[in-house]
Amino acid sequence: MTESVLAYMQSLGQAARDASRVVAQASTAQKNAALLAAAKALDAARAELTEANQKDLDNGRANGLEAALLDRLALTPARIDGMIEGLRQVAGLPDPVGTIRDMTYRPSGLQIGRMRVPLGVVGIIYESRPNVTIDAASLCLKSGNATILRGGSEAIHSNRAIAACIQRGLAEAGLPAAAVQVVETTDRAAVGALISMPEFVDVIVPRGGKGLIERISREARVPVIKHLDGICHVYVSAHADLAMAQEIAFNAKCYRYGICGAMETLLVDQAIAAEFLPAMAARFAEQGVELRGCVQTQALISCLAASEEDWSTEYLAPVLSIKVVADLPAAVTHINHYGSHHTDAIVTENLSQSRQFMAEVDSSSVMVNAPTCFADGFEYGLGAEIGISTDKIHARGPVGLEGLTSEKYVVIGSGQTRG
Amino acid sequence: MTESVLAYMQSLGQAARDASRVVAQASTAQKNAALLAAAKALDAARAELTEANQKDLDNGRANGLEAALLDRLALTPARIDGMIEGLRQVAGLPDPVGTIRDMTYRPSGLQIGRMRVPLGVVGIIYESRPNVTIDAASLCLKSGNATILRGGSEAIHSNRAIAACIQRGLAEAGLPAAAVQVVETTDRAAVGALISMPEFVDVIVPRGGKGLIERISREARVPVIKHLDGICHVYVSAHADLAMAQEIAFNAKCYRYGICGAMETLLVDQAIAAEFLPAMAARFAEQGVELRGCVQTQALISCLAASEEDWSTEYLAPVLSIKVVADLPAAVTHINHYGSHHTDAIVTENLSQSRQFMAEVDSSSVMVNAPTCFADGFEYGLGAEIGISTDKIHARGPVGLEGLTSEKYVVIGSGQTRG
Repeated sequence: MTESVLAYMQSLGQAARDASRVVAQASTAQKNAALLAAAKALDAARAELTEANQKDLDNGRANGLEAALLDRLALTPARIDGMIEGLRQVAGLPDPVGTIRDMTYRPSGLQIGRMRVPLGVVGIIYESRPNVTIDAASLCLKSGNATILRGGSEAIHSNRAIAACIQRGLAEAGLPAAAVQVVETTDRAAVGALISMPEFVDVIVPRGGKGLIERISREARVPVIKHLDGICHVYVSAHADLAMAQEIAFNAKCYRYGICGAMETLLVDQAIAAEFLPAMAARFAEQGVELRGCVQTQALISCLAASEEDWSTEYLAPVLSIKVVADLPAAVTHINHYGSHHTDAIVTENLSQSRQFMAEVDSSSVMVNAPTCFADGFEYGLGAEIGISTDKIHARGPVGLEGLTSEKYVVIGSGQTRG
Repeated sequence: MTESVLAYMQSLGQAARDASRVVAQASTAQKNAALLAAAKALDAARAELTEANQKDLDNGRANGLEAALLDRLALTPARIDGMIEGLRQVAGLPDPVGTIRDMTYRPSGLQIGRMRVPLGVVGIIYESRPNVTIDAASLCLKSGNATILRGGSEAIHSNRAIAACIQRGLAEAGLPAAAVQVVETTDRAAVGALISMPEFVDVIVPRGGKGLIERISREARVPVIKHLDGICHVYVSAHADLAMAQEIAFNAKCYRYGICGAMETLLVDQAIAAEFLPAMAARFAEQGVELRGCVQTQALISCLAASEEDWSTEYLAPVLSIKVVADLPAAVTHINHYGSHHTDAIVTENLSQSRQFMAEVDSSSVMVNAPTCFADGFEYGLGAEIGISTDKIHARGPVGLEGLTSEKYVVIGSGQTRG
């Protein structure tokens, strides 16, 4: 790593650490004022934003960026509206900081409870979508954290223009500029530095492709809240309402192919497979979804053969693997083995089955009679999400404001001593 | 790393992963039965335990182990009593697994809540105290986790004898033997393997000296719940009841010098320093506590000069550094800069001061009018603790059963689809 990049990142880190002490103590009103002022600044800066984004788009085209990435990079008027609306929504969310719960008297006479507090400094590493700059900055600010944002180099002009609007918001509310910092260099060594400064950064949230996230998890010297992949299942049990099961499975796959909560494997109980699969397959075929089935599935419907690899593949595309399973325990075993511990669902009318599935499936979200595509911070009432965690410690599932905080113990006495 | 050690650790890991699925689903009654049966087995095996421990003590003496370590290593009858009592207490604690909170209806009609679930496989790495084997195994089992225990090589015979009793308890309750495994090799490469198997181990809890914990944190490829050091402060404010302050400061330092919650630095407000310090110093002197003061302190009492290094030293000994500070903000700044984010206290009768101190001090426990030595799982009502975390994510402060669990989302619908 070049020394100048390291020194630069350390200066950002030190400034963030200092700013985090101020933001952690900022009042709810002050944080909301900054968010609303940033929303106004974005609205007033539409021309600048579009111009900056055009530079990124031009560079992207010149560098042969593929169409899907160019699409993600584009700051359309609707996306600017979305960022403004997002800021207003985060301003409207309840402030978790300072909440005290379970304040109880202990036999010693001490009163002990837990107070929700910011994590400190959050580093966000993301790829081409510039709107992540606003999502991440607003959630971190509202939860009392300072942020260092490292977006993709292909979005650097857009991110700078967005950051300028956030800076106007912070200044108007009297909050330090270093509460939200965008890494200005596109040198890749900056990422290596950001994930190796536990003295300045408390947690890293990477957002992007699996390769990026795996690399960061492997190399980070700071805790990482991460989302690797979403290999989500729907299991249609022997006790399912089959009409409901068809709606759920169809929605789970086809609501949007590209989201992490999309179903990738449909598990069908052998007791109802012959009755259920033909109509289900016809519906998917009509929608243009390619089906890959196990041997039993192939005996019931016309489809390609699924390979062993299919059971652990996140297609994010109109492709679905289908497996006939013996019973609920077999479904659970398959899910816990091949899945990614993201979101998995059962369709059943049987209470014992629903309880067993909820208890035994080891995923961040476990659903009964609902499609996996509902796995989302807005749908869960978090207001917004900074990502969906497939980790086991700290935060699992959609991570909103609460996931960006922790709890400390508060202890109040009147001179008790331990003896 | 030798291949055979790696293969051995992977076999432990795979067995733990398999057992974790069983333990996670075990009923509260079954887990309690195992704990109580293990307590009985310990009681029945006193002779075996003492004999095994004697081997470790003999080897320790032959290898020139220092007296303090030999003392920690000794399994006295009172310590065996303590282990038995500990098992019974953990059996008596409420089972956190499966608890569902905040089950609410969303506008979509879905009912969404959070269910507490085990982390999976917990790896514990500790040094000479064999009783940690029981503490760790019992807390992990009650919280539905499988455990891999790697104790100090100097305690290997004691740990094996204790593990045999746990095995009897597991067998009696019909739980898999691999729910609690003790690493049988004393090869140091076993630690390296244990902290590098994210596929088999979900979290590592190291217990021991700062050197061990720093090395593990640096090298682990698995999340670590850790406690580095306890540089704890008591700040006597300008609004303190000085008689209470003296009791609190004395207790915080002298309850036990060697615990992480012991006060290492006393901060005294300049407004009351001249009134407070002479009597306080006399009391510490009488107790044999060596005092090291800042320049202002030295002007008021007879003591050694504190060096810059003193402010960040965890003495764990009858030594105390004392600093006169200008006001509450100066005290907070000192604590957040030099402290270890463990436990810090203010003595004050002023409500605003207490609120400001609680909000601004960035430590896992923040206390008002209570001595820092109360930082302890039993005192906090957790029943027992596996350690005190000075981390910011997941668990802060004393870590009990809840800290060994996480929460997943449970979502119940009746066929809703997202559109």
